[in-house]
Amino acid sequence: MTADYGSLAIDTDRLLRHLAELGDIGAIPGTTGCARLALTDEDKAGRDLVLTWMRDLGLDIRIDGIGNVVATMPGEGDLAPVMTGSHIDTVATGGKYDGNLGVLAGLEVIETVIRAGVELPRPLAVAFFTDEEGARFAPDMLGSLVYAGGMALEGALGIEDSDGAVVGDELERIGYRGTAPTPGPTPHAYVELHIEQGPVLEDAGIGIGAVEGVQGISWTELTLRGQSCHAGTTPMRMRRDPGLVAARICAFVNDLALEFGGAQVGTVGAMTFRPNLVNVVPSEVTMTVDLRNTDEVTLRAVEARFAAYVSDVAEREGVDVERRILARFEPVDFDDRVIESVERNARDLGYSTRRMPSGAGHDAQMLSRICPTGMVFVPSVNGISHNVTEYTEPSDIEAGANVLLRTMLELATTEF
Amino acid sequence: MTADYGSLAIDTDRLLRHLAELGDIGAIPGTTGCARLALTDEDKAGRDLVLTWMRDLGLDIRIDGIGNVVATMPGEGDLAPVMTGSHIDTVATGGKYDGNLGVLAGLEVIETVIRAGVELPRPLAVAFFTDEEGARFAPDMLGSLVYAGGMALEGALGIEDSDGAVVGDELERIGYRGTAPTPGPTPHAYVELHIEQGPVLEDAGIGIGAVEGVQGISWTELTLRGQSCHAGTTPMRMRRDPGLVAARICAFVNDLALEFGGAQVGTVGAMTFRPNLVNVVPSEVTMTVDLRNTDEVTLRAVEARFAAYVSDVAEREGVDVERRILARFEPVDFDDRVIESVERNARDLGYSTRRMPSGAGHDAQMLSRICPTGMVFVPSVNGISHNVTEYTEPSDIEAGANVLLRTMLELATTEF
Repeated sequence: MTADYGSLAIDTDRLLRHLAELGDIGAIPGTTGCARLALTDEDKAGRDLVLTWMRDLGLDIRIDGIGNVVATMPGEGDLAPVMTGSHIDTVATGGKYDGNLGVLAGLEVIETVIRAGVELPRPLAVAFFTDEEGARFAPDMLGSLVYAGGMALEGALGIEDSDGAVVGDELERIGYRGTAPTPGPTPHAYVELHIEQGPVLEDAGIGIGAVEGVQGISWTELTLRGQSCHAGTTPMRMRRDPGLVAARICAFVNDLALEFGGAQVGTVGAMTFRPNLVNVVPSEVTMTVDLRNTDEVTLRAVEARFAAYVSDVAEREGVDVERRILARFEPVDFDDRVIESVERNARDLGYSTRRMPSGAGHDAQMLSRICPTGMVFVPSVNGISHNVTEYTEPSDIEAGANVLLRTMLELATTEF
Repeated sequence: MTADYGSLAIDTDRLLRHLAELGDIGAIPGTTGCARLALTDEDKAGRDLVLTWMRDLGLDIRIDGIGNVVATMPGEGDLAPVMTGSHIDTVATGGKYDGNLGVLAGLEVIETVIRAGVELPRPLAVAFFTDEEGARFAPDMLGSLVYAGGMALEGALGIEDSDGAVVGDELERIGYRGTAPTPGPTPHAYVELHIEQGPVLEDAGIGIGAVEGVQGISWTELTLRGQSCHAGTTPMRMRRDPGLVAARICAFVNDLALEFGGAQVGTVGAMTFRPNLVNVVPSEVTMTVDLRNTDEVTLRAVEARFAAYVSDVAEREGVDVERRILARFEPVDFDDRVIESVERNARDLGYSTRRMPSGAGHDAQMLSRICPTGMVFVPSVNGISHNVTEYTEPSDIEAGANVLLRTMLELATTEF
């Protein structure tokens, strides 16, 4: 199938230039990073720039009620499009690749097809979804969630940021409260290119990740309350030390993840001691626990072991525990046919590939609710993301964009 | 020996009244606590009140260059006095017993002796020492340190608080930069009454602690540096997690203290994660470790085991360690003859007693450098101190003050 378009390749210089130009908007002085929080003036400027490029290609542009922008190159018939996309909002100290690469590589794929004069049986579409990062408005992946019908538009428009600004008002203010309906039209298939945001590909020397799905996420906040007392005058046996309980839980989370192995990860990222003084046994410790696995059954087993240990160790040390679920998402499995297409096209182009889960959330997981979906990962240098030092090599960007091109062409001529 | 003065007893109501009146100065509204940081206006007001009471008894009052106040009731001959005392400065949110009890009970002992018309071969003296808490000017126990010759007056006068105020200037300002020389005259013996500030006596149902000495203290701050990374996308084996290392050290400190047993205590009171986010493996963790023992050889063995463990676990996890010694004091042993006197007199009065170390520092440990020294402990309710809820039962205050009275009388007629 791909043989029909065997000579097509994206223009790497043009794609890199687009990435640089978009990265200049909201650039953080003295760094290569940028800040374009969702629905801010910087986000508007980034949106306007990408829209200019979409218009230059003569694409059909639709903006829906939550500000998602979908640009479509018509196909031969009136069929559902093969869609790609991602987001162009960033975290407060972000890089210029996370999200941006998926949108601009999608645009590059369409420009390549248009310039080659290739006509396809199905339309190709590229989207950018509103507020993927969730760094300003919770939850994250808001735009794609509404697109896929996972949240009603009215609810999404009423969400406030920490300063009380409202999504609907901010969309009006920047001119992106569109009229296209939500949920959006169902694509024929969806495939998204994204940087890995982790170290696995780089560490293994692999060029292309064929993403099999997104890990399930379980976030818990524990507040441990004991008895503050004098570190010098209180015998060990008379203590109720929540810091000790927190430490044992932190070590247990690590040991538990290693015991289960595979895709299981466990992290204690935040811990706060009160009163946090050298000579006082703490009265209260707050900590977070982040557990993830690609398999829901395994993740539940890990959660159960974790919960039992917390109860045991807290009771043993005479410490009270308050638990709060911060987030819980089941794992998402992508479509085998899309995963295979990514893998096959990467190999045809001579790249090494690995099937892998995504540890982070992406718009693709929302689209997977409504159509066959997959993702293409390219390496992140040192595994760093959500940081101004985020970087992906031009050769990897070229590889990823060409795999996206081939996969979209194949999906456009494949019936499921 | 005590038989000679067998009928003497302190006036509990008078002592409680004095404690209440002194506690009213700097009282913290809505609590039973008070705030009289060293050399503040509140400290001056407290000093002035206690001086009034000293003058009312016709005592010989000497104020030295660091603001220590020593009030003496003359004896029959020109001999060194039996001294008692403590401090009347408090922490920012302190109680009305810590320090205050030792000074006012000493004054009560002298008033009792004077009113009974008893003449002793040696003078009795009661002192309050400047800046015992160290809550405003470091180091703590500053006044008694200078009295005992452990620091030159000039150095002490130049110490600044966190706002740049200088000890010498503040002494001048409140009118307590005296002319009596430092180091001060060597007492015949020194015995100090203090609340335990821990839960041991209350827990064991013991009335009087005969303090054998002060624990040695070893304080270390560790800064652990690893690699910040994404909690979802970074496999366990590729992490360098300083939070995990901190947790293992915290648990080890507890296990180590339990393994050594006896007087050994170990505490991780402070821990700070950076960046302290639920989904980010921390880049850096700072923590403190407080190790104490009454025996220097054992304390050194514990420190060695601790240091070796820190190196091992940090290397195993690929985390860098920076160590900073925050404090290191060797244990202090009080004088057997004073300890025995406290114990004997408590038993003669019908109180249960226990020999015990002090986990906290006290002026007595400075005086022990120059004369036979001991301390009397009375229970702290719930072991709480340095807190507005600090409390000791009137019956325990009465017991402690009468033991102090008997012990001072005995020491006044004992040659060493």
